[in-house]
Amino acid sequence: MSELKNDRFIKALLRQPLDRTPVWMMRQAGRYLPEYRATRAQAGDFMSLCKNTELACEVTMQPLERYELDAAILFSDILTIPDAMGLGLYFEEGEGPKFRKPVRTEADIEKLEVINTASDLPYVTDAVSMIRRELNGRVPLIGFSGSPWTLATYMVEGQSSRDFARAKTMLYTQPEVMHQLLEKLALSVIDYLNAQIRAGAQVVQIFDTWGGALSHAAYQEFSLAYMEKIVANLITHADGREVPVILFTKGGGHWLEAMADSGCHALGLDWTVDIGSARGRVGNKVALQGNMDPAVLRADPATIEREVASILTSYGDNPGHIFNLGHGITPDIDPANVKVFIDAVHKFSAN
Amino acid sequence: MSELKNDRFIKALLRQPLDRTPVWMMRQAGRYLPEYRATRAQAGDFMSLCKNTELACEVTMQPLERYELDAAILFSDILTIPDAMGLGLYFEEGEGPKFRKPVRTEADIEKLEVINTASDLPYVTDAVSMIRRELNGRVPLIGFSGSPWTLATYMVEGQSSRDFARAKTMLYTQPEVMHQLLEKLALSVIDYLNAQIRAGAQVVQIFDTWGGALSHAAYQEFSLAYMEKIVANLITHADGREVPVILFTKGGGHWLEAMADSGCHALGLDWTVDIGSARGRVGNKVALQGNMDPAVLRADPATIEREVASILTSYGDNPGHIFNLGHGITPDIDPANVKVFIDAVHKFSAN
Repeated sequence: MSELKNDRFIKALLRQPLDRTPVWMMRQAGRYLPEYRATRAQAGDFMSLCKNTELACEVTMQPLERYELDAAILFSDILTIPDAMGLGLYFEEGEGPKFRKPVRTEADIEKLEVINTASDLPYVTDAVSMIRRELNGRVPLIGFSGSPWTLATYMVEGQSSRDFARAKTMLYTQPEVMHQLLEKLALSVIDYLNAQIRAGAQVVQIFDTWGGALSHAAYQEFSLAYMEKIVANLITHADGREVPVILFTKGGGHWLEAMADSGCHALGLDWTVDIGSARGRVGNKVALQGNMDPAVLRADPATIEREVASILTSYGDNPGHIFNLGHGITPDIDPANVKVFIDAVHKFSAN
Repeated sequence: MSELKNDRFIKALLRQPLDRTPVWMMRQAGRYLPEYRATRAQAGDFMSLCKNTELACEVTMQPLERYELDAAILFSDILTIPDAMGLGLYFEEGEGPKFRKPVRTEADIEKLEVINTASDLPYVTDAVSMIRRELNGRVPLIGFSGSPWTLATYMVEGQSSRDFARAKTMLYTQPEVMHQLLEKLALSVIDYLNAQIRAGAQVVQIFDTWGGALSHAAYQEFSLAYMEKIVANLITHADGREVPVILFTKGGGHWLEAMADSGCHALGLDWTVDIGSARGRVGNKVALQGNMDPAVLRADPATIEREVASILTSYGDNPGHIFNLGHGITPDIDPANVKVFIDAVHKFSAN
């Protein structure tokens, strides 16, 4: 593997001092970029783009051509694992992801098999390998997975949901059945992330998009516990370097102390959290990634700069900050505003 | 006015010791009750029900006939103020509320006039008066309003929203215009809640349903500041009693300390917060209302009882707890499970 030319992101994850704060954006390869929309049109639907190694590699690289980003992230979907389990993932125009065969009963869950990434999801590891070669050490590559709880919500509901009625009913009325599902998902995620690390991912992030919908107690038992299990079973070193793990529970700002004890290296923060207070709460246990409201990217350059400066000031001089948005960038953002954002992080964080 | 026979709710809001924890439910007069659905069918659409004094009174009383609740809450909608401002509120079957004339520009906002409840919303105060007479001192009556920020999101978006793209764009690109809108709304809410208090409301609650979508800094400036202004301008005593004010920001668990300094008497908590930790954070400044996940009401009686007991244990022996759900009860709940819930609060909290 080629030497890593820009290792700011990894150093920040390990809380080492740096010349400036590294920055990347969740969903940085996405619909706000005209070149992404062109490649997507060429691929056909969204999953065809994910499954086409060359095109997935191409869109992963696109934001790096435009902006001085400190990390690349595998272009894929969080629902590849349930799709590989046979649930039949599909997307309808203008709606979120859906499954043809949701899991609703104990019998449905008993039938599910833990995935084997090598045989079930070769397109993901193929994409990781190709992107690593294409990056040629320019910046580190992030692999990722949905969290077991987040995957379970989609699998039980059959689609995205406002209140997770079916998933929560299972959680409260048949907790042992929900645990069986989460256990199979945790084992699958371990296999999936380790396969990505072997294929070349240098950092991994677990996206717990819907952990924030749970009660305090249910979060610990049904989401965090499984993420801890995953963290404990990941490959810790590759290419002679530590492989840092980032946990991101959207709406999880109440639980940062518990998350920081999970064994992970960094926590992703959404924009509702004051990052300076978060730093105080977790001490020096973990790095923090975030946390500008993506809506700020709709504003004028002066406002974007002011918001970036405000987050940097709130975080302060400690090492261990990776700048990011508090959630994925939305399709309506002007790519010129993204440049203002990235440049502002560089300018205001330079030592 | 007749003497209040059950004042547990008001005493708990003032953090006075009690024989047991009082309980009510957000949206307790609602679609989960067959008798509500019958009255609603008689009224026609939802707003016709709100505007019909007799029927609004009837549905307010319905849950009290079934359950031993410690408070009644005015049956109305949070969007009556923008409707009175001329935005044209309507409901489409199976969708949320919508406005025919959303406010999108500075000119739109300049044209808006602060409401005069007596002339613009007489149906609301008429309902309050009639419900007070009908209650005849049985339990206290809660009046309510949406928060300025929450009203503003619906007024600018024209409907409910996932990411509040238009409202946040206005907030970040034209903050002074958003402030002008919020100022008019705050003055309207003050007039509206004081009119409800004069008509007989003994407690008022401000519902900040969408404050939790804001960043830490934006919440303080665009939501909490206006709620503070409202609290500072409300009638403090009626019928020789203090009129307690409850603030409820859904997703606002990060900001409890700041909310507790607003001058209000109590904070509503959603289910993501551990109520014991919340108690520790706000000290004895305010009472706390909440906070069971409404999804628990879909479970079996034993699970409902266990969750109730767990919240009571977490809160501990301090005075100042009002049991409630962390958000409104949903239409799919079996009324028999609500009885299990209410009875469990009585049973497990009795001293």
